[in-house]
Amino acid sequence: MWLFNNPPRKQLKDKYGFEVTDAWLDHVQKSSVRFNSGGSGEFVSEDGLVMSNHHVGADALQKFGDKDHNYIRDGFRAKTRGEEKRCLDLELNVLMSIEDVTARVNAAVKPEMTPAGAFAARRSVMAAIEKESTDKTGLRSDVVTLYQGGQYHLYCFKKYTDVRLVFAPEQQAAFYGGDPDNFEYPRFDLDICFFRAYENGQPAKIQHHLNWSKAGAAENELVFVSGHPGRTSREFTAAELDYMRDNQLPYTLARLNRLEVLLLSYSGRSDENARKSREDLFGIQNSRKAYDGRIAGLLDPELTSDRAAAARKLGDMMPPEMRPAAQKAERTIAAAQAVMAEHALRYRLLETSHGFMSTSFGIARTLLRAGDERAKPNGERLREFRDSARESMELQLFSEEPLYADYEILKLADSLAFLEIKLGAEDALVKSVLAGKSPRERAAELINGAKVRDVAFRKKMYGGGSVAVTAAHDPLIELARLIDGPSREVRKIIEEQDEVKQQAHAQLSKAKFAALGTSVYPDATFTLRLAYGAVKGYETGGQKIPFETTFAGLYERAGEHHNKPPFDLPPRWVERKSRLNLATPFNFVCTADIIGGNSGSPVVNKDAELVGIIFDGNLESLVFDFVYTEKVARAVSVHSSAIVEALRKVYDANELADELTRRKK
Amino acid sequence: MWLFNNPPRKQLKDKYGFEVTDAWLDHVQKSSVRFNSGGSGEFVSEDGLVMSNHHVGADALQKFGDKDHNYIRDGFRAKTRGEEKRCLDLELNVLMSIEDVTARVNAAVKPEMTPAGAFAARRSVMAAIEKESTDKTGLRSDVVTLYQGGQYHLYCFKKYTDVRLVFAPEQQAAFYGGDPDNFEYPRFDLDICFFRAYENGQPAKIQHHLNWSKAGAAENELVFVSGHPGRTSREFTAAELDYMRDNQLPYTLARLNRLEVLLLSYSGRSDENARKSREDLFGIQNSRKAYDGRIAGLLDPELTSDRAAAARKLGDMMPPEMRPAAQKAERTIAAAQAVMAEHALRYRLLETSHGFMSTSFGIARTLLRAGDERAKPNGERLREFRDSARESMELQLFSEEPLYADYEILKLADSLAFLEIKLGAEDALVKSVLAGKSPRERAAELINGAKVRDVAFRKKMYGGGSVAVTAAHDPLIELARLIDGPSREVRKIIEEQDEVKQQAHAQLSKAKFAALGTSVYPDATFTLRLAYGAVKGYETGGQKIPFETTFAGLYERAGEHHNKPPFDLPPRWVERKSRLNLATPFNFVCTADIIGGNSGSPVVNKDAELVGIIFDGNLESLVFDFVYTEKVARAVSVHSSAIVEALRKVYDANELADELTRRKK
Repeated sequence: MWLFNNPPRKQLKDKYGFEVTDAWLDHVQKSSVRFNSGGSGEFVSEDGLVMSNHHVGADALQKFGDKDHNYIRDGFRAKTRGEEKRCLDLELNVLMSIEDVTARVNAAVKPEMTPAGAFAARRSVMAAIEKESTDKTGLRSDVVTLYQGGQYHLYCFKKYTDVRLVFAPEQQAAFYGGDPDNFEYPRFDLDICFFRAYENGQPAKIQHHLNWSKAGAAENELVFVSGHPGRTSREFTAAELDYMRDNQLPYTLARLNRLEVLLLSYSGRSDENARKSREDLFGIQNSRKAYDGRIAGLLDPELTSDRAAAARKLGDMMPPEMRPAAQKAERTIAAAQAVMAEHALRYRLLETSHGFMSTSFGIARTLLRAGDERAKPNGERLREFRDSARESMELQLFSEEPLYADYEILKLADSLAFLEIKLGAEDALVKSVLAGKSPRERAAELINGAKVRDVAFRKKMYGGGSVAVTAAHDPLIELARLIDGPSREVRKIIEEQDEVKQQAHAQLSKAKFAALGTSVYPDATFTLRLAYGAVKGYETGGQKIPFETTFAGLYERAGEHHNKPPFDLPPRWVERKSRLNLATPFNFVCTADIIGGNSGSPVVNKDAELVGIIFDGNLESLVFDFVYTEKVARAVSVHSSAIVEALRKVYDANELADELTRRKK
Repeated sequence: MWLFNNPPRKQLKDKYGFEVTDAWLDHVQKSSVRFNSGGSGEFVSEDGLVMSNHHVGADALQKFGDKDHNYIRDGFRAKTRGEEKRCLDLELNVLMSIEDVTARVNAAVKPEMTPAGAFAARRSVMAAIEKESTDKTGLRSDVVTLYQGGQYHLYCFKKYTDVRLVFAPEQQAAFYGGDPDNFEYPRFDLDICFFRAYENGQPAKIQHHLNWSKAGAAENELVFVSGHPGRTSREFTAAELDYMRDNQLPYTLARLNRLEVLLLSYSGRSDENARKSREDLFGIQNSRKAYDGRIAGLLDPELTSDRAAAARKLGDMMPPEMRPAAQKAERTIAAAQAVMAEHALRYRLLETSHGFMSTSFGIARTLLRAGDERAKPNGERLREFRDSARESMELQLFSEEPLYADYEILKLADSLAFLEIKLGAEDALVKSVLAGKSPRERAAELINGAKVRDVAFRKKMYGGGSVAVTAAHDPLIELARLIDGPSREVRKIIEEQDEVKQQAHAQLSKAKFAALGTSVYPDATFTLRLAYGAVKGYETGGQKIPFETTFAGLYERAGEHHNKPPFDLPPRWVERKSRLNLATPFNFVCTADIIGGNSGSPVVNKDAELVGIIFDGNLESLVFDFVYTEKVARAVSVHSSAIVEALRKVYDANELADELTRRKK
């Protein structure tokens, strides 16, 4: 998960004899696309065509749907550009430049400051740097915290907000094998989706886009993955990992299990319920498997002792004079983590809204806080209200995403009950929140009485500021107000302790750089990273798992399962079987280092040609959260050949296949 | 939920003008059957034919299955008596007599005894009473604790252990609508199953069995339900209910959610996995809905204030001189409950085996403890090893139920991870249990290395006692030994506090009897109870719900859902539609007071004729755990007419329909 401004030149040369050039890096970087909704993608034509995964595009597909259209389930194809469907709130980012601003950020934070003061100063300088950059370049500008606080880089992104849907297969082709096969291998999934970026109502003209490889990925080939891994915990100290193992992950898993059961149960009652909850349910099931894998990693004594050995080795390599400071930093982190642990539950329930889960509540809170925050100077606002983030925030806030009262009530009622159980029925705040009603009754009253589902109302509130918001007496906004004090309070505690941790981590990073040089990459932060590896099968439980699968394998698997869900083939795939070259490679694995957020990342060869697209990792790769290993952990991709073959033979989408394979530059 | 030896004569006479006779009670009591696996049933022919629910019989159906037979899913029909299939470990009980032994039990417990001493004395006298009774009558004899310790009754049961499966429909007919429709109404379920009790290799000759009503249940008719409600909490004090709300139910629900997700995920991977886990999964989903309803009841402020008002009223009616003792008893219960809360987690993980969930571990522990306990005098043993329970325990222990290594590993691995998360990875006992391995690795090693799946091995261990058990070095038995000390220790704490609570509840009961007379029934205890009510629809959300559904409604519902799971019709029901009288009543509701355990209970009219069979309650009935209400809470039954019509027209089971409807006596 290397930074594009600090690539693994030496490792690539030593291990693979490949010399990566600046031009190669620049081209791959600017061909890579970040989906602001969570995920990765890439430009694949000069006309702004973007490829990603079906499951990354699913958020946009979900929001198009209504009771007569289920695009996630049934797929979509625009036969002409005129039919391309504009997404409601999708934003794509392309990284244009990186600048190290560590010195400026740290200069603003004085040693004598309290944690609260230091946090405020840091927030303020970051907002200032971002605003200056946005004003100067017109680009989305984010100061990114790297090495857990060891460095700060300014990332500037070109932003596309007119993004249109071009093509998506049926979910049953994209997510063949469903939850049971998710994070498994061998796989047979056409997990792709195409969008087109527009500018000024026309397809965007794109300078950097990836050429399509004729042959696609071959065994043992060196490949690169350029994408946006969401988060990893490899730099965490023992105290932080213990907290994850004992507190954060168990809480998260239990909550995911609760939500999965809730949504499965709702979903099972009708097709329409299933449609409304489809994307949420997928997300929850996907996270649940990922978290299961993570916690399994933390409960694995082998990984624990590996990590301990690595820490000892690092300690040995550290210049002796730095050791006391490093040890002190570790203790500081442990102490801060202990404070955070004490407040974590309240923070999650109130500030992360686990006690108020519903899109409507999120909108209500944003309206309430926008009224208060936008009146403050840029540097003093809650970070999500800083000037440089305004446009992206407004895109979300004014999204025409349909919100269904019954579904909103379901989620809010369940989370109010969760709140009551977690904080206790006798808790004063819980009592005010419920106002003498049962969670179900209260949720129904709140959602049915709220006006926030109406976008015009939101615009009026946002435009009118806190005066309008107060005058509206909207029950959900008033609920947000009721908890705003306690919620900000606990957020402040967490942010202060986070500041303490960041300063300590900066110390540790310094010691680490001294020991290992800067040939280390930081933990993932949902910013662009470069990974590399070989296309390679593996062995597990005495069984050899070949590096690739074929279309023939898909039909065999469906046969073994008597074509029963989730192993049934979409009708189109049954009808078109005889047209397909069944020997076409379908999915393949490689040893590249990926994690959630990398979904949709291009897999490219030495010539920067696209040979595949990442869509999953195997179960064994889930420990990547804590450590990279190439023994059995693998990233899973759709093979480039499968994409073209399926587009032409199954979907009659020759125009799309032509656009992909047209030779560029 | 009235006792058969204290029936609601006055209420029946006042409200319905019905005078219940001793003969009527005796007949209905002895026609009622308890399924020891959990559930109710009834004799419906003089040849030992027993009817219950499909979901009560599912445990037996599951145990018959193998990879070529899925009886739960596909159903079963014995065309001749020779084809009736003997169940592996099913025991049926018929209540023959009740005797009040309160005085003798309480006489054994001296006021000056410590809780530990009192508990031991009570356990000892109960075991002695049971043994004397078994020796004298040859009947299964259980001392049942009623009114939370206010009374002790000796129940003597005739026992049938040669029970054979006669008929079961496909689960899709029995459980039409699946989890989404469970606990809902209107319903369309043929949730029935037939067994036959045998004695000496011949169908048992049964004196008391229910006649089949020609007309079946009619609107507004007075009906009775005679069955075995499992447990209720209506006599719980406020402290006990708070504990349920804040501790027990949240824990249970979170655990059920975890297991449901685990089994759904396993089940989805193959048909064979789905078959192996089918009955467990049904049980978990069913419990989850029931617990959801219970916790909703405790979080409902209206129910809370109703309960408070009832408690105040009871206090007012109490003779003033009893009030201080009653108040003291409440405080004693609260204090005991607080101690129990402290130890509850360890108790559940160790003694209830939530940290070791697998049938194999249960067997291993039984073998270990049988070795130790059987060497002790009857009165000093853990209660499950008392002489009078020996035969029933052995029936379970030596069951030929198939145990699948992969499924056992799945469950044990998950529960070891659960144990580690709950007690912490640094807990000394957890460390010994895991022996330096990950939960998954350790579970595989334990299950693969254990011999307890072999029934011959179990018999050898059981016969050889603790010497044989120690010599065997079976890894699972050794694991059971490792935790046996701590597990017994925490059990002792819980049992002592339970004794304290029982004594205090006895005080409260005395005060209650003084206030209300003995016209009160005790909380459910999975012993025979009589409930009554009217066949009656209800109104919810402004909608009138009619008291009955018809076959026609089933076909309509399938049509609305495009015949998609779980609303698909079994093929046989599609083919036979034209033969059926579609106007036949299918399911109906009544206001009788039921709860889990009542499944399979006969619904009888004033003439003690069977008019239906209980199989569910609506969502609104789930508060029956805490309070009975007849406004919208309803018990749901299969109508007697539907059973005969379906047997004849859908299943060609005329011989069975004839046996049911033949006029007896």
